[in-house]
Amino acid sequence: MELDSEQYFSSYEDLEVHKLMLEDGPRTLAYKNAILNNKAYFKDKVVMDVGCGTGILSIFCAQAGAKKVFAVEASNLANLAKEIVKENKFENIIEVIHSRVEDVVLPNYMKVDAIVSEWMGFYLLHEGMLDSVLFARDRFLKDGGEIFPESAAIYIAPCSVPSLYNNWDNLHGVSMSSFARELRASKGSKPEILTIKPEDLLGAEVALCWVNLREDEAHDLNAYSIEHVVGASKNGYYQGLCIWFECIFPKLPDAAGDGHTVLDTSPQSPATHWKQTVIVLPQQQEVEEGEPIAFQLDMTRADPTSRRYNLQMTMLDPEAVEHPLPCSCHMTKCILAKAFMMQHAEHAINQKNNENDTNVLQDEEINDDDDE
Amino acid sequence: MELDSEQYFSSYEDLEVHKLMLEDGPRTLAYKNAILNNKAYFKDKVVMDVGCGTGILSIFCAQAGAKKVFAVEASNLANLAKEIVKENKFENIIEVIHSRVEDVVLPNYMKVDAIVSEWMGFYLLHEGMLDSVLFARDRFLKDGGEIFPESAAIYIAPCSVPSLYNNWDNLHGVSMSSFARELRASKGSKPEILTIKPEDLLGAEVALCWVNLREDEAHDLNAYSIEHVVGASKNGYYQGLCIWFECIFPKLPDAAGDGHTVLDTSPQSPATHWKQTVIVLPQQQEVEEGEPIAFQLDMTRADPTSRRYNLQMTMLDPEAVEHPLPCSCHMTKCILAKAFMMQHAEHAINQKNNENDTNVLQDEEINDDDDE
Repeated sequence: MELDSEQYFSSYEDLEVHKLMLEDGPRTLAYKNAILNNKAYFKDKVVMDVGCGTGILSIFCAQAGAKKVFAVEASNLANLAKEIVKENKFENIIEVIHSRVEDVVLPNYMKVDAIVSEWMGFYLLHEGMLDSVLFARDRFLKDGGEIFPESAAIYIAPCSVPSLYNNWDNLHGVSMSSFARELRASKGSKPEILTIKPEDLLGAEVALCWVNLREDEAHDLNAYSIEHVVGASKNGYYQGLCIWFECIFPKLPDAAGDGHTVLDTSPQSPATHWKQTVIVLPQQQEVEEGEPIAFQLDMTRADPTSRRYNLQMTMLDPEAVEHPLPCSCHMTKCILAKAFMMQHAEHAINQKNNENDTNVLQDEEINDDDDE
Repeated sequence: MELDSEQYFSSYEDLEVHKLMLEDGPRTLAYKNAILNNKAYFKDKVVMDVGCGTGILSIFCAQAGAKKVFAVEASNLANLAKEIVKENKFENIIEVIHSRVEDVVLPNYMKVDAIVSEWMGFYLLHEGMLDSVLFARDRFLKDGGEIFPESAAIYIAPCSVPSLYNNWDNLHGVSMSSFARELRASKGSKPEILTIKPEDLLGAEVALCWVNLREDEAHDLNAYSIEHVVGASKNGYYQGLCIWFECIFPKLPDAAGDGHTVLDTSPQSPATHWKQTVIVLPQQQEVEEGEPIAFQLDMTRADPTSRRYNLQMTMLDPEAVEHPLPCSCHMTKCILAKAFMMQHAEHAINQKNNENDTNVLQDEEINDDDDE
């Protein structure tokens, strides 16, 4: 397909979105590290980049020594990717394919050694293109091939949302609570994309789901649901549920660096363009340390073929739901259960230590054997 | 007008824009300081807040001791302003008037002592409501009344725009110049709202205009134009014209603090939501220190009744235009002119010093007279 400057891009917004993503250091560097720390793996491999955008991930693969990269991009951005590939002198290695990945046919029906893709949306799945990555895996990836990233998880924790609550109690000496209330009301029940500070988390996170890109099928992504109780980690105002995700890249033999590259979008990690996703409560709830916070969260595809999800949060009565074991809340049954479990764990550790002593002796014996 | 929660706000965006403005510390604090440092002035005064929005400036005036504030707001935000006024217990002082200021009739055709207004848009005049403030001045302000702010100026300086140029030469080891070129092209000739760092300025600023809110008429705002030459302050890449503004508040007798409050949106000042406005050149131009940069900038109302302006920049040939006196550029005529002027200035200073010696003697004589 020849370059046609007239039909370059459907919209200016496309480029602004890509600018935002490219300038997102934690994102771009996670891919760079995951790829360039694995030169031993990438050398002479054939790779497919699903939804290559500007082509930067394909270029990382070429820099890491890949002998061929199929850079698949459905939008007109493919034309720009071709130019960027040329600018980096990789036109002999990277082949930009202007197509939906579902319509791609590779030469001689060949298969690829690895798939790289940056498919993540807000709260991981929002308008994401994971379905296309799973399709590409089934159609194009060799048995035992690698996927970058290879797994992902979504986490949830209760939080305060000062930018929609407390910050407005006293703004330079003026009370603006009516403004904050109206602001919250105006957002309806739509989740908010905003930045939550680590100190605004009100309890430990729980995983809503793990996505295994090697094994999951598209229908596995249709619905996730969790019912959970967490004890407040401190006194504060429970004002929302904070949702974030992490992606884990393969740990391969002879990798440089210290093992798995992880792209973590939690409040504790450096800010990314995904920020955090927050379901804001219409009314805050004052909680004290240890108080149980119970909720249900459902993340469901709008319809089976849709890339859009509905998020639904339900506040639950901590008295009426089952608590995890152990539970961080201060209800008597949970304190008792935790005490019992700790006692049990201590007993187990003592027993394990005794076994370890024996093991050390055995190890020495084996070493002796080896030396002989 | 009674509160009607159904018709509160035309759009969610309105509230987000006001959130942005309220959270803009330099903006909100400039008004707070300009008003609350002048309690001696505001005590028992009658004030009009033109386009009061959420009402925060009116509340500052009430806190400063005003006996009456007419808070005029055309949009449905007026309903929220009423609630915020109540929340701050100033409903006996602040009267929110849900109306265009052009349609307001005050009781007994009374006049006000002062007008406060936050009317500034991007590059000061973009979709601003200064016309309405000038209307309010002519219709409602007593002779000798005060206007907060009372004057404003727009400044222009040549600059580098790394976020649209150099940042893309090497992004984590990848050359993305084609991306940056496409990004610039996609923006067409529209000015960009972005943040310029002080170190990206490439020469001294020049004032495009001063707006005197006490005297200017709406038609004075129809068109501003400047033709200018400035010497590059260092070697670098000339990639755009950076435009910003400042607003100056009245300095009144018995003010607390150190004189005029200034709201300055220059690259050297703390960031505001106005950022800077930049006219980006389609092609960068390498310049060395002292090299003359010549341009013409025209800021013209789209039509005589419009609040929208067109910005037009023309690059000029430094050889073909008149240079300011003195000029910071390294062209021979400017170096010679500057040397001559400095010589002249030195001569004048010497002469002035001699005169000052005489003045001091005279002052002493006068003081002696007073003491007698």
